[in-house]
Amino acid sequence: MHPYPYRYANVGYMYDPLVYRYPLLPPMTWPEAAQVSDMSVGYEHLQRLTFVLVHGSWADASFWHPIAGQLRRTGHTVYTPDLPGHGSDPNKNVSHERIVDSLTEYITSRHLKDIVLAAHSFGGTVIQKVAERIPDRLKRLVFMNAFVLGDGQSLADQFPSQALALFEQLRQSSKDDTITLPFPLFRENFANLASLQLAEQLYRSTTPEPAAPAFTKLDLKKFYSLQTPKSYLYLTEDNVLPQTDQHSFHPLMSNRLGLHRLIKMPGDHMTTPNTDARRVAWKLYEAGRD
Amino acid sequence: MHPYPYRYANVGYMYDPLVYRYPLLPPMTWPEAAQVSDMSVGYEHLQRLTFVLVHGSWADASFWHPIAGQLRRTGHTVYTPDLPGHGSDPNKNVSHERIVDSLTEYITSRHLKDIVLAAHSFGGTVIQKVAERIPDRLKRLVFMNAFVLGDGQSLADQFPSQALALFEQLRQSSKDDTITLPFPLFRENFANLASLQLAEQLYRSTTPEPAAPAFTKLDLKKFYSLQTPKSYLYLTEDNVLPQTDQHSFHPLMSNRLGLHRLIKMPGDHMTTPNTDARRVAWKLYEAGRD
Amino acid sequence: MHPYPYRYANVGYMYDPLVYRYPLLPPMTWPEAAQVSDMSVGYEHLQRLTFVLVHGSWADASFWHPIAGQLRRTGHTVYTPDLPGHGSDPNKNVSHERIVDSLTEYITSRHLKDIVLAAHSFGGTVIQKVAERIPDRLKRLVFMNAFVLGDGQSLADQFPSQALALFEQLRQSSKDDTITLPFPLFRENFANLASLQLAEQLYRSTTPEPAAPAFTKLDLKKFYSLQTPKSYLYLTEDNVLPQTDQHSFHPLMSNRLGLHRLIKMPGDHMTTPNTDARRVAWKLYEAGRD
Repeated sequence: MHPYPYRYANVGYMYDPLVYRYPLLPPMTWPEAAQVSDMSVGYEHLQRLTFVLVHGSWADASFWHPIAGQLRRTGHTVYTPDLPGHGSDPNKNVSHERIVDSLTEYITSRHLKDIVLAAHSFGGTVIQKVAERIPDRLKRLVFMNAFVLGDGQSLADQFPSQALALFEQLRQSSKDDTITLPFPLFRENFANLASLQLAEQLYRSTTPEPAAPAFTKLDLKKFYSLQTPKSYLYLTEDNVLPQTDQHSFHPLMSNRLGLHRLIKMPGDHMTTPNTDARRVAWKLYEAGRD
Repeated sequence: MHPYPYRYANVGYMYDPLVYRYPLLPPMTWPEAAQVSDMSVGYEHLQRLTFVLVHGSWADASFWHPIAGQLRRTGHTVYTPDLPGHGSDPNKNVSHERIVDSLTEYITSRHLKDIVLAAHSFGGTVIQKVAERIPDRLKRLVFMNAFVLGDGQSLADQFPSQALALFEQLRQSSKDDTITLPFPLFRENFANLASLQLAEQLYRSTTPEPAAPAFTKLDLKKFYSLQTPKSYLYLTEDNVLPQTDQHSFHPLMSNRLGLHRLIKMPGDHMTTPNTDARRVAWKLYEAGRD
Repeated sequence: MHPYPYRYANVGYMYDPLVYRYPLLPPMTWPEAAQVSDMSVGYEHLQRLTFVLVHGSWADASFWHPIAGQLRRTGHTVYTPDLPGHGSDPNKNVSHERIVDSLTEYITSRHLKDIVLAAHSFGGTVIQKVAERIPDRLKRLVFMNAFVLGDGQSLADQFPSQALALFEQLRQSSKDDTITLPFPLFRENFANLASLQLAEQLYRSTTPEPAAPAFTKLDLKKFYSLQTPKSYLYLTEDNVLPQTDQHSFHPLMSNRLGLHRLIKMPGDHMTTPNTDARRVAWKLYEAGRD
């Protein structure tokens, strides 16, 4: 009827010749299909995991809500704590240590164990320290475009000098030692895949970020001796850090983890977790499962 | 009926477990769907932009025609000028400056303003200079696998020494100071995703490229002081430049832009803009919108 | 009926706005579709190729069976030899040279010519040497996440020092100079995209790998003088080597090939060739065709 090839092209991520050619092929036989055993693992064989999802800077627990909803729907147990100085907490005068204390207390007071402790962005530095405190409660650490600091480094150390200078200037110009992201920076580097309307909507939910934790150099010797399994989930359009060997979430931060499981998907820093929560949830599961 | 999993696998870019698992999930509820606000932005909310699309070397305006058609169809206004020494212009004796003059004149004589000035490949060096001349007419610069030169550099400076030596030799062997791409180089590095037939068809439309502009070192001090918003659209299978930190369109050239919006899609240098024009057009829109 | 956008989202690799917007667009007209000439090349225009597929370490010919089945189905002729010291061969005392001898003999004794000689992983070092011996029988070399050694290097030289130390320790601890992959390393770095069940299934099919060939430094001067066409097929989630400029399959090993055709697809080292054999087969075809 409509023999031109775009007929099917709508449904894939890119033009894919298989779409057009494989209707011409005989279907797979059962022995072949049986070889593809991962695919035939049914829904009921999925593991049920306990996730603790740690948000990043300029964000709070609501960052994770769409993803948490998807994870709960597939049977996982999900916790999304607000870090001190974020969400409903009006006190922006928080240290990195107090944030680590708070998350540790959150987990221990609930007697959580065997947890997949996953973090986004700044949250990576928090779970590095929490992992030092309560390694026995962790099944695995998952870093989703999250900072992984080298021993003795701060988050601020990870940025190129020009970006660092901007952050220092923004910090100086605040009255309460916070950093407010300028909208153009947010729109271009944090929400590059969003429409303007969505970028504005996401921006309205940001709040001034306490500056001190990002400039705190962390002793991470114990972290680098831990045997906890680790995964890095990398959304490939994230441009918060330059995608170079010197500065990137991946491959720089990911490889600091040593042996780790690498998972990727398309996406940016702040948009995709909202607009594609179902897929991010699946990738978090791939990162977090045994 | 046909329980084997490949039943749906035809339609996606890769095997994707969501395809098989999510039929088992309840559909999203409306509140969740409403959260995904970017998706519910309807067709009628798209911005209408004015694009000026600048072609690269060994090409002319026809490079952009499939993409321009898609953009016009979504309501955008699109201009696709031929640069001097290209297309129907038989005179190959052109300088980089004359090309810049011509494009500037093209824009100013039509009184175009608020334009998204987008370039492919060599065209990137042209819009860097045009932006210095008429910054007030620009809404945004978009570089699509385009060269972004550092101050004082030439396009030829961007290539590894072996490739540069080849280009110099091709230049020497021409009678009119042009460079003719050998087919094997075009087929492997410029049209790697094409069938042989399509690569040959695309190759037949190439013409000898004036050599001087590619060897002209450009003063770009003013470019690097401009506040014009910038985007980099990166097709990820482009192998014209090695995909290393030292030589690549991305991350090397993209990061020269300073603050910029990064957009990616699968694709190579010359094939994908032809075979997947609809998707490239959408990504250009994502790169060009406010 | 169901106006919320996830209705179609199941079928693509990522959320893709085109899926939602383009139903609103008029379909392509025939002249436009005709421009997209690669798409209209029908099934009957595919080339019929002769593939010789060379497996890697801890594997044997069965690694290629799902892919070979797909290739044969599209009309290609496919050979999947077992290398000495692998598969049914109980003798693990093999040198790199003997492996090269064996593969050369396999090809010459069958009078194969005009072949696409493709290799995975360690197999890359084997086809580098075989290509030196029988260049006249080769249409093209294809490296699929395969090692490409520099002249005078060994496979072991390609690993970061920490991984190298582990391999040396595993070698020391064996009684027959083999290396047995620890499951955690296999699961995280070789089968990162698999479920645990599939990773275990794939792991059960691995066998101790003769160590000597991986530590043999190869004279590759002739290889680097060959004019044989070359392709690199890169599965982008492969984490066997760090994805940095210093250590990676791509861009490091790929660019050692000089002029080459780059093809990419999502996938890891050992899972995807099993679970997504149809797509890998197509990409091998894209890599191997003229």
